[in-house]
Amino acid sequence: MIQRAADTACHAHGHVEAEHCDVPKRVTVLGATGSIGTSTLDLIGRHEHAVEVIAVTAHSSVEKLAQCALDCRAELAVIGDPALYGQLKDALSGSNIKPAAGNDALIEAAQMPVDCTIAAIVGAAGLKPTVAAARCGGRLGLANKECLVSAGNVFMEEVARAGCELIPVDSEHSAAFQILQEADSDSIENITLTASGGPFRTWPLERIQAATCDEALKHPNWSMGAKITVDSATMMNKGLELIEALHLFPVETDQLCMLVHPQSIVHCLVSFIDGSVLAQLAEPDMRTPIAVALSWPRRMAAPTKKLDLAKISQLTFESADEERFPAIRLAREAMERGGTAPAVLNAANEVAVAAFLEGRIKVPDIAALVGETLDSADKRGLVAGASCLETILECDANARLLAKEVLAKGNLVA
Amino acid sequence: MIQRAADTACHAHGHVEAEHCDVPKRVTVLGATGSIGTSTLDLIGRHEHAVEVIAVTAHSSVEKLAQCALDCRAELAVIGDPALYGQLKDALSGSNIKPAAGNDALIEAAQMPVDCTIAAIVGAAGLKPTVAAARCGGRLGLANKECLVSAGNVFMEEVARAGCELIPVDSEHSAAFQILQEADSDSIENITLTASGGPFRTWPLERIQAATCDEALKHPNWSMGAKITVDSATMMNKGLELIEALHLFPVETDQLCMLVHPQSIVHCLVSFIDGSVLAQLAEPDMRTPIAVALSWPRRMAAPTKKLDLAKISQLTFESADEERFPAIRLAREAMERGGTAPAVLNAANEVAVAAFLEGRIKVPDIAALVGETLDSADKRGLVAGASCLETILECDANARLLAKEVLAKGNLVA
Repeated sequence: MIQRAADTACHAHGHVEAEHCDVPKRVTVLGATGSIGTSTLDLIGRHEHAVEVIAVTAHSSVEKLAQCALDCRAELAVIGDPALYGQLKDALSGSNIKPAAGNDALIEAAQMPVDCTIAAIVGAAGLKPTVAAARCGGRLGLANKECLVSAGNVFMEEVARAGCELIPVDSEHSAAFQILQEADSDSIENITLTASGGPFRTWPLERIQAATCDEALKHPNWSMGAKITVDSATMMNKGLELIEALHLFPVETDQLCMLVHPQSIVHCLVSFIDGSVLAQLAEPDMRTPIAVALSWPRRMAAPTKKLDLAKISQLTFESADEERFPAIRLAREAMERGGTAPAVLNAANEVAVAAFLEGRIKVPDIAALVGETLDSADKRGLVAGASCLETILECDANARLLAKEVLAKGNLVA
Repeated sequence: MIQRAADTACHAHGHVEAEHCDVPKRVTVLGATGSIGTSTLDLIGRHEHAVEVIAVTAHSSVEKLAQCALDCRAELAVIGDPALYGQLKDALSGSNIKPAAGNDALIEAAQMPVDCTIAAIVGAAGLKPTVAAARCGGRLGLANKECLVSAGNVFMEEVARAGCELIPVDSEHSAAFQILQEADSDSIENITLTASGGPFRTWPLERIQAATCDEALKHPNWSMGAKITVDSATMMNKGLELIEALHLFPVETDQLCMLVHPQSIVHCLVSFIDGSVLAQLAEPDMRTPIAVALSWPRRMAAPTKKLDLAKISQLTFESADEERFPAIRLAREAMERGGTAPAVLNAANEVAVAAFLEGRIKVPDIAALVGETLDSADKRGLVAGASCLETILECDANARLLAKEVLAKGNLVA
């Protein structure tokens, strides 16, 4: 499915290292200016004689988009916000890069023929472009959470229908993906995703209740966006990842486990029926899972710091505490419920985290708001089967409105 | 290559669980009364409707051999020592199990048509029967160290020629085997075997120098035979395993690493060029690697205790100390030298460990004796290329004589 860069092309450039020949030749990066997008282009830049970047897109970071399009010599640069078209066009003038803007242009960018698309648009906005890329078949490196959390069944049907080769791009699911090759579902006892435990891991409930925004944003191991950092602090992030794992791997909900591992070195463990446990470890660096998505089943060199366990000296593990981190239970319940429940969970969580980042609510209110939104959505018949992308998007929008209503009413019961 | 128990056969017995159908139907166990052999028969006993034991063999534990042949309803039981034939025959009288004795009978047992042979004869005595089994093609679960340590190149040529499917049966190499499926050699940065560090891990050199036999036999995690337990205490065991790994996996000597990990939970780690590290973990129980050898690429249920990392709480790692454990350096040098050097190393180590167990020498003398035997063997032209099994066996015998000479002379320089 993946076309390898031809040997001759590698030799012609004087780059005969094996890894240069094992990377897909033509790559599009949806969401090129975010954290994953930037890491992807950094990695591709280190293999530039073997990889051609076709399209790069961004929502509104127009200057950064233009710069990265120029740096990687993309064919097409698309800015989501149509109002920024002129600015993009000016920034790219004199280059051969075609500027475009708006949602239709994002879809068109996603549909350009490539060997691999890295789908790294954050949030519900990523659904349509990512599905458009999946429908083209080929390889999809998936970093957008909503495709699996909110639209899991619908998205996976699209993937299967198109014969798309889906490779997850985040540490935990990439880890499981690397481990689970060849494993048949009867052999798997369970899949354990690890969680750092976030900045509040060792805090008693009372202290978490009084935590400030700055404290929630101090992630011990990873440097990520504010939304996902808060999700790590509440551990909702790990709950969402359990839902993703359910769609990606051949297991049932009760085979999905979570383990707190403060060092964030072990990303996932898979236990088999013979007592064997396979785990993936790496220094926290998204360029490793991106490299896996680009070059699997081979491997391409990535500049991730080499793991030195003798220096790290110890890895510790502890159970996740659902009392202090009720988001875990909420996510698990939504996962078991299925249908649009995870979409409501995710939408309510986005509203809640935004309100938290604006200083309007405290940490425990995030889970409380999500819980009350889920209850309220249930009563209004919003939690139902999910038959198509439009149902999901409508549910997502309605759940946001509902969450805002719950938020406006106040009186959240944490 | 492996014939699965037919579905119909499983159904006929009323055993329709998936694992029962994924185990090779006909299995021979060479060295059935030792530690690995006993674990193999225990595991097979739990899947008895799916597995037929064809032949079992032992060196001299005649009563135990007869009992296990009766328990597993083998077709053939072979005792290595011909003097014990009568005793075996009597013990099996009234059963349908054929008794036999002597080296030729061992070879014949190894050549009976089966789906999988577990080759668990300890020491150089295992070379010929194991090679005989390998020559039949089919699957070979290899627990004998000498085939790879002493006869590596010769043995691997036999395996390749016969199209034998070789699966290592010890914790570290089984771990690497499970991890390395599909990996191409260009992707591998290095392979790290873990070592418990043995009972002397934290001891200063002076205390190790005065250690008693009882102290050396107190392995922190594994219950094994005396020879291998002493090898763990000197860490020669891990050195021998590096040599085995060199023959089993597509790496060079400088890609083979060792890491002390006192809990013996992580058995092997493979680092890839993209920064990803895959590891295998399990509670120490040989039934896990045996299950892998029997059922790969599927998995069969094994009674190994489930790994509970939250309960274990921490895994620690430290560098191996070649000053206190000079056997590591000796093994590495023999590995790099190649040819018959590892055979000399192994033979000298057996003599040295036997002398230690007899109370004739102290712990540091083991490595000293091995080192002096290697030097002496080199001077006498014993360290050379290894072209066939006979050369290896001759070298093994000569190295033993030489080691005994060095031992008799005394004055070992530790």
